[in-house]
Amino acid sequence: MPRIVVDVMPKPEILDPQGKAIVGALPRLGFTDFVSVRQGKRFELEVEGEVTDEILAKARDAAETLLSNPVIEDVVNIQVVEA
Amino acid sequence: MPRIVVDVMPKPEILDPQGKAIVGALPRLGFTDFVSVRQGKRFELEVEGEVTDEILAKARDAAETLLSNPVIEDVVNIQVVEA
Repeated sequence: MPRIVVDVMPKPEILDPQGKAIVGALPRLGFTDFVSVRQGKRFELEVEGEVTDEILAKARDAAETLLSNPVIEDVVNIQVVEA
Repeated sequence: MPRIVVDVMPKPEILDPQGKAIVGALPRLGFTDFVSVRQGKRFELEVEGEVTDEILAKARDAAETLLSNPVIEDVVNIQVVEA
């Protein structure tokens, strides 16, 4: 079954404590090449049958209403992934 | 600055309560086209300068040791995204 991947990230101006904690821990594990880290969410929505434009529009709608909080997050990517 | 995107998803055999909760809520909001939903994590690692193969290998290493729990999660994607 085809899947629709939805990527949600915190808005750039929003404080990202998880990202800060990770970027703080990386050097202690020997990783010194990364200047900043931001953590968001990745969803995979499985669809029965073909992914039409209409279904893709519904996925965007669901992403903006249920899968993300528009006050603090942005839907940064929606793409179809064949199973 | 270039960024490396790391996508982490729960292993297929692992129960995904968040995904279950979402797929349960979708019909109540009028979304009936989605058969299942899985929720994972998306990281953006910012790199100073060029992303070499060596830095990409370090990003994979960091993904497998710090950004994911190899017992219950898979690193499903690592890609370079120009700023």
